Amino acid sequence: MIQVCIIGSSGHFGYVLDGLREVPEARLVGVAPGSPGETMDKVLAGASRLGAAPRLFDDCLDMLDELRPDVAAVACHFGDHARVAAEVLKRGIHAFVEKPVATTYSDLRMLRDVYAAGDARLAAMFGSRQMPHFRTARQAVREGAVGDIRLIQAQKSYRLGSRDAFYRQRSSYGGTIPWVGSHAIDWVRWIGGETFESVLAMHSTRDNKDHGELETTALCHFRMTNEVFASVSLDYLRPPTAPSHGDDRIRIAGTEGVLEVRDGRVLLMNDREPGIRELPLLPKEDLFPAFIRQLDEEDGRVSAEDAFAVTEACLKARQSADEGRQVLF
Amino acid sequence: MIQVCIIGSSGHFGYVLDGLREVPEARLVGVAPGSPGETMDKVLAGASRLGAAPRLFDDCLDMLDELRPDVAAVACHFGDHARVAAEVLKRGIHAFVEKPVATTYSDLRMLRDVYAAGDARLAAMFGSRQMPHFRTARQAVREGAVGDIRLIQAQKSYRLGSRDAFYRQRSSYGGTIPWVGSHAIDWVRWIGGETFESVLAMHSTRDNKDHGELETTALCHFRMTNEVFASVSLDYLRPPTAPSHGDDRIRIAGTEGVLEVRDGRVLLMNDREPGIRELPLLPKEDLFPAFIRQLDEEDGRVSAEDAFAVTEACLKARQSADEGRQVLF
Repeated sequence: MIQVCIIGSSGHFGYVLDGLREVPEARLVGVAPGSPGETMDKVLAGASRLGAAPRLFDDCLDMLDELRPDVAAVACHFGDHARVAAEVLKRGIHAFVEKPVATTYSDLRMLRDVYAAGDARLAAMFGSRQMPHFRTARQAVREGAVGDIRLIQAQKSYRLGSRDAFYRQRSSYGGTIPWVGSHAIDWVRWIGGETFESVLAMHSTRDNKDHGELETTALCHFRMTNEVFASVSLDYLRPPTAPSHGDDRIRIAGTEGVLEVRDGRVLLMNDREPGIRELPLLPKEDLFPAFIRQLDEEDGRVSAEDAFAVTEACLKARQSADEGRQVLF
Repeated sequence: MIQVCIIGSSGHFGYVLDGLREVPEARLVGVAPGSPGETMDKVLAGASRLGAAPRLFDDCLDMLDELRPDVAAVACHFGDHARVAAEVLKRGIHAFVEKPVATTYSDLRMLRDVYAAGDARLAAMFGSRQMPHFRTARQAVREGAVGDIRLIQAQKSYRLGSRDAFYRQRSSYGGTIPWVGSHAIDWVRWIGGETFESVLAMHSTRDNKDHGELETTALCHFRMTNEVFASVSLDYLRPPTAPSHGDDRIRIAGTEGVLEVRDGRVLLMNDREPGIRELPLLPKEDLFPAFIRQLDEEDGRVSAEDAFAVTEACLKARQSADEGRQVLF
């Protein structure tokens, strides 16, 4: 039996609760807050719907020391991800961590060092990687559907609504580029397959409806290896009347075609057939069960490198936006 | 009767031929090449379909001096626009010029000076301004459909095909940012209503299928007044199998909604109604008749400022891409 704990209730702990249904060999044994002021009510309610009865701890370190779980999910305030994940890893416990895995360079360095010093696994909650449309897009591009990739445009657009207090401070929220942008920056790298060389980004807190330091808009412009260019557009401007919460898009133009993800669909034009084709979608693949399955695999440490690389790209983009200058990798 | 000449056959001289049908008081009296090696066969063929029989000159300056037309359209190699347009203006003749109106800073400065010294009018062939979808988008945005504009993404994607020899050299072509990008950069300014503050751009000639110095891809990232950010993505990667020659798009996100132009349609979401609405389109308004009509109007010199400002933005973006650094306005 694989013992699982959840720390925090601010990120996508639902990935773990949903995933547990698919992993009968795993059991939720404990939950605890990871940041000041977090309550675990929503997590406990979700657990009870699963038929699980985890113990509630006030202190996540006490929980880790007492229960000694195999896996801990970290989903507290974003500014605390690195510190808490490091405590998990130091105890030899595998960490399934909300992205970005750190919100400062020093925290990222610290987490990388702790990870490198041990054998425990780490993966970030790149939620869109589990989605049929992004999985399908990646497979098609990797199989050559657009030839050599030359240009990428990615977009995340969300409703703002009224966000918890911790979103309003850089120290706990981390910034819109790391929080919202990490997904799109991951797509650029995960689907595009190139490495970041430089970034120029901009962000603005204008019209954020009393959300303090939260940036409402951001635009990042990456130069990748092989003269591939990528734009990442981020905003919280999606109106409340929109047909869905988010509007995720990516367009990948290559030497032999153009592929787009939009409205959960994958559209392809290429040299081989006339017109625009909608690709049949791969099934959803839940992240948490995949993380559990790869704990026994040799190459299971790849996921941590993805988490660190994307987090670093987010921090460089945020630095660029803060300082108004291009930042090199 | 308004006497009209056409110089060159490389740009959109069709705007003039089409427009003449709507302007019975104007008559095409002469045509001549504007750049070495240009033939005027296509222009003459188009004229004869109109029932016009313009005189063909070998030298455009001889034509201007002998016919003394009221208006001359300039549509030669792009690197010759400024020189030829200046000759037109110096003679007190109104100039309807293919964009960009110059391909170097010194030519732009020279053309601005010549324009300022006289009374003749100048307008650039911003062809998409005449299109129903862009006219509708601008009207809606200017009427407040999305509230205050915060973020803009624009795209031009073309088929490359096999282009004339003059496209293969920077000196005659000017670059993909000025040639293709001038449209999208014009939308950003014309619809968005803000002023450029800085630009970072990148471009690449990779995989240009023997088109010499022609850039296949470009990505421009503008900072505008009021912390409005705009990306402009340009490519010649549209496959031959695509359903149309070009794929023009713009997305404008504001404090109260998001408006998009895509596939010739205008889609709006905002706070006022649920879901996505497709806006009814304004009619097409041909550029050339509009230019002729405004020759008698007081504010008819606005169009030249648009042409100069967009050309300058293109040249700064191209400089940024050439030098790999941000350029200020």
